[in-house]
Amino acid sequence: MEKKIGEQYLFDFYGELLTEKQKQILDYYYNDDYSLAEIAGVMKVTRQGIFDVIKRSKAMMEVYEEKLGLVEKFLGSQKLLEEIQKDLVGLTEGTKDLELKSELTAVIEKLKKVSEEN
Amino acid sequence: MEKKIGEQYLFDFYGELLTEKQKQILDYYYNDDYSLAEIAGVMKVTRQGIFDVIKRSKAMMEVYEEKLGLVEKFLGSQKLLEEIQKDLVGLTEGTKDLELKSELTAVIEKLKKVSEEN
Repeated sequence: MEKKIGEQYLFDFYGELLTEKQKQILDYYYNDDYSLAEIAGVMKVTRQGIFDVIKRSKAMMEVYEEKLGLVEKFLGSQKLLEEIQKDLVGLTEGTKDLELKSELTAVIEKLKKVSEEN
Repeated sequence: MEKKIGEQYLFDFYGELLTEKQKQILDYYYNDDYSLAEIAGVMKVTRQGIFDVIKRSKAMMEVYEEKLGLVEKFLGSQKLLEEIQKDLVGLTEGTKDLELKSELTAVIEKLKKVSEEN
């Protein structure tokens, strides 16, 4: 079972919509990077059972993403925010006006907060 | 049936998770501001039927909000983004450096895009 780029994001955004059991299994899988066999051992379920839960959970989260597009929106705004941050860092480095420098630095800090909370 | 502040946001964020019929009714209700009686007329359902659909849909969306918190996150980052925008407008207005002015203006435009896509 291959983990595709972006799957972790699906779990980050939609994990809360899964059942407790699904969430637990996907948490082992994505966050702790357990193998299917290891999860099967901890959960006392067959490896096939774990495989099925992960497969079904992924399909559910993909349906949510099709409807809500949270991951796509997130990646888009992160890209824009990074770009803005880079622009502002450039302006901060380019000016000799110390007051402006400190004001821009404060703005950059706020922007980082937006990125983190996004 | 009173529309509380924020309900419209619930529909904006979670409307796609409702059934087509629920979505249609809530669209009349929130976006077209139809009364329950008017929606009942258009949908050929009783007023009570419409009331029930709206009530159930709202409860569903509130559960989603409890789990995902998209509206809360959105309002938080909109507030921060507005603050940043105001800071940057202040800096733009405060400088006589035309190059800086135009660079800051470009950053503000990008920031508006983040707010819109949020």
